Amino acid sequence: MSGGTTPRLSRRQLISLAGGGAVAAGGGLALGRATGAEASDGVAVHDAGMAASYDFHGAHQAGIVTPAQDHLHFAAFDVTTDSRDALVRLLRDWTDAAARLVVGDGAGPMGPTSGPYSAPPDDTGEALGLPPSRLTLTFGVGRSLFTTAEGVDRFGLGPQLPERLIELPHFPADDLDPARSDGDLCVQACADDPQVAVHAVRNLARIAFGTAAVRWTQLGFGRTSSTSTSQETPRNLFGFKDGTANLKAESTGELDEHVWVQAGDDPRAEWLRGGSYLVARRINMHIETWDRTSLAEQEAIVGRDKGAGAPLSGGDEFTEPDFDARGRRPDGSPGGPLIATDSHVRLAHPSSNGGVRILRRGYNFTDGTDGLGRLDAGLFFLAYVRDPVRQYVPLQTKLSRDDSMMEYLEHTGSGLFAVLPGVRRGSFLGEALLS
Amino acid sequence: MSGGTTPRLSRRQLISLAGGGAVAAGGGLALGRATGAEASDGVAVHDAGMAASYDFHGAHQAGIVTPAQDHLHFAAFDVTTDSRDALVRLLRDWTDAAARLVVGDGAGPMGPTSGPYSAPPDDTGEALGLPPSRLTLTFGVGRSLFTTAEGVDRFGLGPQLPERLIELPHFPADDLDPARSDGDLCVQACADDPQVAVHAVRNLARIAFGTAAVRWTQLGFGRTSSTSTSQETPRNLFGFKDGTANLKAESTGELDEHVWVQAGDDPRAEWLRGGSYLVARRINMHIETWDRTSLAEQEAIVGRDKGAGAPLSGGDEFTEPDFDARGRRPDGSPGGPLIATDSHVRLAHPSSNGGVRILRRGYNFTDGTDGLGRLDAGLFFLAYVRDPVRQYVPLQTKLSRDDSMMEYLEHTGSGLFAVLPGVRRGSFLGEALLS
Repeated sequence: MSGGTTPRLSRRQLISLAGGGAVAAGGGLALGRATGAEASDGVAVHDAGMAASYDFHGAHQAGIVTPAQDHLHFAAFDVTTDSRDALVRLLRDWTDAAARLVVGDGAGPMGPTSGPYSAPPDDTGEALGLPPSRLTLTFGVGRSLFTTAEGVDRFGLGPQLPERLIELPHFPADDLDPARSDGDLCVQACADDPQVAVHAVRNLARIAFGTAAVRWTQLGFGRTSSTSTSQETPRNLFGFKDGTANLKAESTGELDEHVWVQAGDDPRAEWLRGGSYLVARRINMHIETWDRTSLAEQEAIVGRDKGAGAPLSGGDEFTEPDFDARGRRPDGSPGGPLIATDSHVRLAHPSSNGGVRILRRGYNFTDGTDGLGRLDAGLFFLAYVRDPVRQYVPLQTKLSRDDSMMEYLEHTGSGLFAVLPGVRRGSFLGEALLS
Repeated sequence: MSGGTTPRLSRRQLISLAGGGAVAAGGGLALGRATGAEASDGVAVHDAGMAASYDFHGAHQAGIVTPAQDHLHFAAFDVTTDSRDALVRLLRDWTDAAARLVVGDGAGPMGPTSGPYSAPPDDTGEALGLPPSRLTLTFGVGRSLFTTAEGVDRFGLGPQLPERLIELPHFPADDLDPARSDGDLCVQACADDPQVAVHAVRNLARIAFGTAAVRWTQLGFGRTSSTSTSQETPRNLFGFKDGTANLKAESTGELDEHVWVQAGDDPRAEWLRGGSYLVARRINMHIETWDRTSLAEQEAIVGRDKGAGAPLSGGDEFTEPDFDARGRRPDGSPGGPLIATDSHVRLAHPSSNGGVRILRRGYNFTDGTDGLGRLDAGLFFLAYVRDPVRQYVPLQTKLSRDDSMMEYLEHTGSGLFAVLPGVRRGSFLGEALLS
């Protein structure tokens, strides 16, 4: 059913340039390629401008090295059935719906306004008339799909549990809310229009009714990491540029080394080849405290200057930090390091972590107030890695212990998911795992 | 201090067209006028495109009849001091900051990266490099500023309490959360980039530290009402076009009749002339139930067809509904009304409400899940009226009792605010009230 079906009332036919809504911006990849061209990452690109869209099919899922869109709606699901057949059916249905949604069509072949008048529409309609907005939908599976906390293997998937799909250890600054953590399945919806991302998640939830239920969701905005050299580095809610040294889509060799699961990585999980691991962390920022900290201290904590984002050792944003550089005392003798030993940029840098690099793809969030007059706001950290055990765990262990920024941070949600490989045309999400 | 100060590092100087972020769209007013032109609503418009902005000064506050932007961050505050002087100082400081923020500058004259290195910056920095994004900041005062629930007049404002700034009555479908209701002060921040709106509210909260604290906030997206004839009608989370018959900025005479407080409206509140009243209601939609309702029933409840938004009596979206039109039975005799007697469009129509009209300016919201696997989502209803007692109360009384849509709705938050008149250059927010 995927791909070829043309709905009777297509959102694409309704798109008007006069309408409101965000415009696809910064889409270097999308705008720089011919219609339908196959990208090196397996993501085909259709159209340009308002109507820019990514194909759902490819060697890898879109939404990982895709230039980060402006908005996020992330959802984790609990599977509410013990039927493996129902789970397979859900993943097939999600595949069909996702292939439609990312090109701007309705979630089902009828769409929101056609079909039997006496039946519910197979799309909810709130994205009718909106362009595809570079929507990507990226699916993953949690450890609990293979084995519950009580060790129950509900779907006969236990033997295929990836070795690296661990329960994350408790880190010193963790204050995790179980209602914002974990899940059997996850979907990351990113788009340049939040209504398009919310519409996609809502329809996937609707399709899952009776098989899986939403466990938690997170809305995000103002992407905090650039994932392509065509994008400027955005700012987090501390007001600093964030993710300057991030892995980029253009670094093909490094993506194979640091992001994509390779053949032979895990004999139990050959089904994950071409996939990745997603670490999701809801990190509250104590912004009221931060805002009362001097500019000098803010910059010392980050290790970069606030305006341009240059390392305190000098240069511009993209100058490599010089961790050996020292200041001078008034008498001319050498002073302390220009980039403090407990600064974020030093502790997070690959050179402090045995060359470990990650692909960050996080978003800012604000979810109202905390009941004490403080904004419930921060960073929804999303990172894609080839091996969470060797990449994320040691990095976060070090940061949560030594990073002076931790005084202003509190991790309130957490999830680790195995992100499925890309879906070939005619296949479905997780086919290699479930067939 | 307002207006003329040029910060050392201006956001406007940093704006790059290559960057991400939403593009000012649908800005008919903004794009169609010369730089600095004074609009009929007192809102001056500067620049165009990415950098489109509205002047903070004018006869009325911007953000009411301004073409609705794509994103909302609304905040209500509790004043935490009993000092009238401190309250005045806050309103002066907010005026200065707002005038800067709406043109894309920092919240204070130093900005986020200049000034004494040993002091906190007077802007938090996360909007550095982002264009103004048509930001508007609209301020109001709640009944509790004049008299607390216990009847205490903290600031000597009791005699100026507007007659129409009532405690809203309990409506049948209300399930209000006090933590999402009311407040001494409110600010509505609207922009085409959520990071710009969040930045503004966060800096206003920072400035208020020690004088007022955030009571509750609401993030919204996908404006659900067009407020200008230049805008297409957007869709709410029921998938229907919403606000087709809304008052528009272009209807100057009707705005005076239905939106702006006029001289003589209230002898106790001449200070409110040129202001308005804002009704804010957080309306949860039971979207999972709605999504299992047939297309026929959805359309009968709304009274319009889902695709084009035309009334069920025929025509197109902007055809006036014909409430007398009846269907025909198979034998040719007259059937029931084409637009059901308990449909939303009939009950909300001015002809059913003694000609009452309101200016709606609401947004969709989704705030995660409700703990039962359902999305916590709906409509953050914002309506501007000249007289809430005669316009909103009877309308909502009727809707909450008779509207068949109420089965799918639950009001979970509520606020009524007197929206201050526009600020003349050299004056400050609420000067006529407090001086």
